[in-house]
Amino acid sequence: MNVETKELQLNTRGEVELIDITVNVNRALSESTIKDGIVTIFVPGSTGAITTLEYEPGLLQDLPNALERLFPKGIAYEHEFRWHDGNGHSHVRAAFLGPSLTVPFKDKRLMLGTWQQVVFIELDNKRRSRRIILQILGS
Amino acid sequence: MNVETKELQLNTRGEVELIDITVNVNRALSESTIKDGIVTIFVPGSTGAITTLEYEPGLLQDLPNALERLFPKGIAYEHEFRWHDGNGHSHVRAAFLGPSLTVPFKDKRLMLGTWQQVVFIELDNKRRSRRIILQILGS
Amino acid sequence: MNVETKELQLNTRGEVELIDITVNVNRALSESTIKDGIVTIFVPGSTGAITTLEYEPGLLQDLPNALERLFPKGIAYEHEFRWHDGNGHSHVRAAFLGPSLTVPFKDKRLMLGTWQQVVFIELDNKRRSRRIILQILGS
Repeated sequence: MNVETKELQLNTRGEVELIDITVNVNRALSESTIKDGIVTIFVPGSTGAITTLEYEPGLLQDLPNALERLFPKGIAYEHEFRWHDGNGHSHVRAAFLGPSLTVPFKDKRLMLGTWQQVVFIELDNKRRSRRIILQILGS
Repeated sequence: MNVETKELQLNTRGEVELIDITVNVNRALSESTIKDGIVTIFVPGSTGAITTLEYEPGLLQDLPNALERLFPKGIAYEHEFRWHDGNGHSHVRAAFLGPSLTVPFKDKRLMLGTWQQVVFIELDNKRRSRRIILQILGS
Repeated sequence: MNVETKELQLNTRGEVELIDITVNVNRALSESTIKDGIVTIFVPGSTGAITTLEYEPGLLQDLPNALERLFPKGIAYEHEFRWHDGNGHSHVRAAFLGPSLTVPFKDKRLMLGTWQQVVFIELDNKRRSRRIILQILGS
């Protein structure tokens, strides 16, 4: 059993951007020495999130629509009164969606469904250079 | 330290169905050779989710009610315009709830609270035959 | 590779209370024999949750405001009709936010962003004495 740390680098355009990172994670697994186990995919930062989604054009609109309906950009956020960076909604959305996803893998491949992709969600209101940590554990 | 992969098979009726899988996960742990560690409970598929809940009849209505309030079945989903399978809301709900839950165990038993069960949530709009992956790591 | 189990004890005031446990988790990691790996931070109980947040006074109001907007305390919950303990909303909120968070660490330090803290959220409607499990895996 071992631990290996790998990283992805992403340049994002800002909210709400969904980026399919499935191929990147599978490539990192194929380059690791670990065959079977779990990978924790983690965003260091409080305005990004990780989940899975069928990555198709319809849902790439439906998920942002749901975020805007539940956590509107235009309502008052206390965060804004203090920091004036316009991203109060980004922080609240990220806390709900979560910064961490753990996925099993076998023979160096994620055990996903056929129509299921791993997606990074940029929730911040500006371009970001993002680092995603892949912590790989197994044997 | 070892890795063991086990699977559960579930036949579901469709949305929104909550299935208590606590006994099934504990049975898989008791049949494993690993005594202490974590189990990642993962749904391969983009219309199912895993969380914990006090599994009692009241909440089995309250959670579906909250899903319908936040992500109504009757509003327009872009997914629907493209695929016409009537489950746009299922995909959006699943992305919010998440396909993965990691739970610690000790002496081959989940370290849950007294009134806390592990629940699979079928969010798809039809009957499904579901495979749940249990990736067990520990020593 | 090893497994170590540690625990945090928290005395909470009740809903909605956000407690920054980053220092506590880092202290537990520094006292462990494991240098690199993952820690699963888990609440045994169905009315608490774990996520990450920029722990600043504005967001400490914005997150509770969002919870009240999405899952109001004042609407009817079936849980309430059966148990009369006034915390139906607490259970539903906890199931959405989730009881488990897995975070990578390196050299016995959580790999968090600069403005990102690990937060326990007390969602129950009364004071609680809480036990948080830290399951540490790595080498």
